[in-house]
Amino acid sequence: MKVKVRILPYNIEAEAEEGENLADIIARSVSGFVLPCGGRGFCGLCKVKVIDGRLTNLTGNEKLHGIEPPFRLACQARVLSDVVVELEGVGRLRALASGIEPRIEYKYPLSSSKLISIDGRPHQPLDKWIIRKVDTKGVTFNALKKLSLLWEKGTFYSVIFEDKIVDFSEKPRELGLAIDVGTTKIAAYLVDLANGRTLWESYILNPQSVYGDDVITRITKVLENKENLSKMHRMTIRAIEGLCRDGCKAVGRSVEEVSCVVAVGNTVMMSIFLEVDPTPLGKYPFEPLISDSCEGYGSEFDFKALGDSWVYVPPSVSGYIGSDALGDILTARILSKGMRRTLIIDIGTNTEVALITDSDDILATSAPAGPALEGGYISSGVRAMEGAIYRVRITDYGKVLYSYYGDRPIGLSGSGLISLIAEMLRKGVINKYGRFMGEHRKENKFYVDPKRNIVVTQNDIREFQKAKAAISSAWKTLLKVAGLTPNDLTAVYVCGSFGSSLDVSDALEVGLLPPIHTNKVYVIGNAAGTGAKLILKSRKLKEEVERMAREIKVIRPAEGKEYMKFWVKNLVLQ
Amino acid sequence: MKVKVRILPYNIEAEAEEGENLADIIARSVSGFVLPCGGRGFCGLCKVKVIDGRLTNLTGNEKLHGIEPPFRLACQARVLSDVVVELEGVGRLRALASGIEPRIEYKYPLSSSKLISIDGRPHQPLDKWIIRKVDTKGVTFNALKKLSLLWEKGTFYSVIFEDKIVDFSEKPRELGLAIDVGTTKIAAYLVDLANGRTLWESYILNPQSVYGDDVITRITKVLENKENLSKMHRMTIRAIEGLCRDGCKAVGRSVEEVSCVVAVGNTVMMSIFLEVDPTPLGKYPFEPLISDSCEGYGSEFDFKALGDSWVYVPPSVSGYIGSDALGDILTARILSKGMRRTLIIDIGTNTEVALITDSDDILATSAPAGPALEGGYISSGVRAMEGAIYRVRITDYGKVLYSYYGDRPIGLSGSGLISLIAEMLRKGVINKYGRFMGEHRKENKFYVDPKRNIVVTQNDIREFQKAKAAISSAWKTLLKVAGLTPNDLTAVYVCGSFGSSLDVSDALEVGLLPPIHTNKVYVIGNAAGTGAKLILKSRKLKEEVERMAREIKVIRPAEGKEYMKFWVKNLVLQ
Ligand code: FES
Ligand code: FES
Repeated sequence: MKVKVRILPYNIEAEAEEGENLADIIARSVSGFVLPCGGRGFCGLCKVKVIDGRLTNLTGNEKLHGIEPPFRLACQARVLSDVVVELEGVGRLRALASGIEPRIEYKYPLSSSKLISIDGRPHQPLDKWIIRKVDTKGVTFNALKKLSLLWEKGTFYSVIFEDKIVDFSEKPRELGLAIDVGTTKIAAYLVDLANGRTLWESYILNPQSVYGDDVITRITKVLENKENLSKMHRMTIRAIEGLCRDGCKAVGRSVEEVSCVVAVGNTVMMSIFLEVDPTPLGKYPFEPLISDSCEGYGSEFDFKALGDSWVYVPPSVSGYIGSDALGDILTARILSKGMRRTLIIDIGTNTEVALITDSDDILATSAPAGPALEGGYISSGVRAMEGAIYRVRITDYGKVLYSYYGDRPIGLSGSGLISLIAEMLRKGVINKYGRFMGEHRKENKFYVDPKRNIVVTQNDIREFQKAKAAISSAWKTLLKVAGLTPNDLTAVYVCGSFGSSLDVSDALEVGLLPPIHTNKVYVIGNAAGTGAKLILKSRKLKEEVERMAREIKVIRPAEGKEYMKFWVKNLVLQ
Repeated sequence: MKVKVRILPYNIEAEAEEGENLADIIARSVSGFVLPCGGRGFCGLCKVKVIDGRLTNLTGNEKLHGIEPPFRLACQARVLSDVVVELEGVGRLRALASGIEPRIEYKYPLSSSKLISIDGRPHQPLDKWIIRKVDTKGVTFNALKKLSLLWEKGTFYSVIFEDKIVDFSEKPRELGLAIDVGTTKIAAYLVDLANGRTLWESYILNPQSVYGDDVITRITKVLENKENLSKMHRMTIRAIEGLCRDGCKAVGRSVEEVSCVVAVGNTVMMSIFLEVDPTPLGKYPFEPLISDSCEGYGSEFDFKALGDSWVYVPPSVSGYIGSDALGDILTARILSKGMRRTLIIDIGTNTEVALITDSDDILATSAPAGPALEGGYISSGVRAMEGAIYRVRITDYGKVLYSYYGDRPIGLSGSGLISLIAEMLRKGVINKYGRFMGEHRKENKFYVDPKRNIVVTQNDIREFQKAKAAISSAWKTLLKVAGLTPNDLTAVYVCGSFGSSLDVSDALEVGLLPPIHTNKVYVIGNAAGTGAKLILKSRKLKEEVERMAREIKVIRPAEGKEYMKFWVKNLVLQ
């Protein structure tokens, strides 16, 4: 059904389809109306005032930004009738777009620099005097060697990591680098440790991709030749240094100012980052060689430009629950202000699910969702990249509307696939068993864009159902272990760069998430990277992550016949 | 006066001078009677049974070995009349000769190796499993990288330092290296960490000597050119590795088995060992840049062959109280079984003195004794080396008898000088003000061996008196601070390779030590090196040393007029 959207103060009237995304409608009508975070609900900058008309319900992300009627975030709302909205302003700067970061009291960053002035020679050993002066517990031997070179200047900086001095330098060193090593992408964040602000963020494709797209292929390459581990390790380290250099250049700072690096990732990526054999992760019981946290000078991790920075790698919990999942949980827990009965889902080829129980235990499990949600095995599937369709609507007349990144639509991203399947379900193109209905049963496919041959087949839907079944089996298992029902949940946090363009109501429609009200679902983006930043920003949160790693109860994915029956039931889209 | 010594079971009758050392008399009469520790009272192997006759009093060292009449240690006794003795046996092996080592319960050495067998893959991360298995607190990142290379073997060793795993290896690594870096000598000890036994010990001259004999000259060289610090550092490290290689070869072990190194030394030597600028130690207030303990892989200290060993350097207390003094105090305290009111003296160019007070506080100070006791500024002075005369007796007929190391007497060591001066005092050759008396006043010199032109002059005696004044001022100061008199002392421990050939009654005669009974004086040899060994052998003692370093009260050597008056009074030989 067609609806009319009147946009004040420009008094522009736009035509739209019922159910279309409000931000999409405004963006194509008002030039200069940008979606700073890409319409992901992260930046809170697409705020509009609703003067009249009906829209879909307030989302969790709008609540996170403190949005209340008559205000809305345009990117979070769909129109259900003719509406009149008033824009707050147009043409803002592009925001940092990778996720929602909780506000924390900024007091004890993981690393800081303190000025030291020696007036007159103190009547005690200089190291003792400095330790007392800056109130730390100790100083590394490497730092002492630096002191040996610097002390005669009389004025210099001590660079502190947690409770020890790790360097002395002529200038303060107050940049932190947070890294999320993903199987596909490596994301980097530069944080100003003087005030906790994120100065810059970016990502690159993980160069390990030349050894295979997924972790299993890469592990196989190491099995074939141990040298490949060193090669992948080195290319990862070089890539991170490259990102760091780019970031420092972009913000006019020097790489030497980076005093501290925090790196998270899944267990395989962290093994490769540490140059530790990942092959045990490729066979039963899929446990890593190393799970403990590691820290030391960058040089110990083979960094060169960052050789003098202090690197901290949080622990992994098990083969499938890595430090990226810990970052997710950390971020979600702070956003939820420590609320219980919250579910945290990081959707990807390996989907991690965690549940905070009524007694504040953390249960975690993982589901092998497979590559369908990242474009794999899907006829028109693509990764979430330029050209990816991430949202689809079917009008009452059968016309297909869609949103995509970049200039030219190429195929369906995971969110696009979910959105399409949800819409097909709503409009009766398929039934809840994933079968094409009516006229579509003949061809057994549905064209999203016939001109560009973007299509979804019966087989694609089956692939999606398998992923959906794996994911919903995982959270259902955790709920069961905790003795909870979806109704008991106070919130669901959806993490991962995948999740970040997810339309929550679509995900609920197909049963990917537990059936709860949309305003209890928070799409928080790359919470693993945010977690790494939070650790950089707070010693307490570093301790918190280590505590969580010790205490998390890993629920091993079920196996055998019983599970098969359960999984088959979950193929149903509801 | 001549006396007769009858030696059973050989029934040999030897002629001797009254006051001659019993071991010397037996050694020249019974071939095969060796002094395993060189007659220093360390080994306890020169035990004889006294059948008849009078000898000097039991010494402290004899008490340490549990010797009671009618038994004696021949090297500790002098004959006062005709005597009859019975030998226990002759021709024993040469003992390790650098000092007396207290017996401790051998339970938790600083480093140990534990076998790990993985049967079946454990259902948890391997590092966690191993940590639990060997009951440690953690594992270093470097060790984890080794694990990555070794785990597939299924059986290997974890190498533990204190409470963390620092290496994994195919074979056990259970050798410890204790090092005492002296200004003149570097002493090394190889300890079997499986049972705590010292396998080998040796020393070499400190190669830094090419930069000057004393610490001040060496500091000056660093002031002239910072490069000299690196050069001295490197030659020291190379020298230690050379010693270690020699030792391993001698006992048929491999250098790779050395898992742990403990190095002590005075504060200047430790600065150079660590390659930290020692120049602040050369000027007021003579405090070091670094006093805290340091530890890490050998490679961080520039070791090559020992690059994978874990090196521990105990703290220094101040510019003049180094970790060598801590080693002395540690050793003495264990020997004394924690007794209070004990004095510990390490005689050398810089003499360290410590006093355990009634309330178990440790007071420490140091005295610039100068080089006289090491042969410096003395006409016929030599270091304690081959050819050094270490004991002198003057017969009633004015004949001079002396004992010396090696084949040919060359000059007087510090002990020799003390012995000579004590004997000259006894026999009225000089008075207590150090002036030659009677016929000797003419020449103002005394010939120890006219043929070899070994002589002592009035000036030599003055130099000795200055050293003696500095040392006795130091212990008198400590006694005063603690409100004690010499009578209150329960024991005096004399440390240092210098002290090890000291005749206690001679040292008492000249007032070098507080006037107490000889059997309360213990000559314990290189207690600094023994301290390093004790730390290797016990984690508790490592903690003990760190505690001592924090708690010791350093009494700064007095300055100014007041002290000068005190010092002048102490020139008197009594
Ligand atoms: S565009 Fe950022 S919240 Fe809507
Ligand atoms: S020779 Fe060793 S104690 Fe006498």
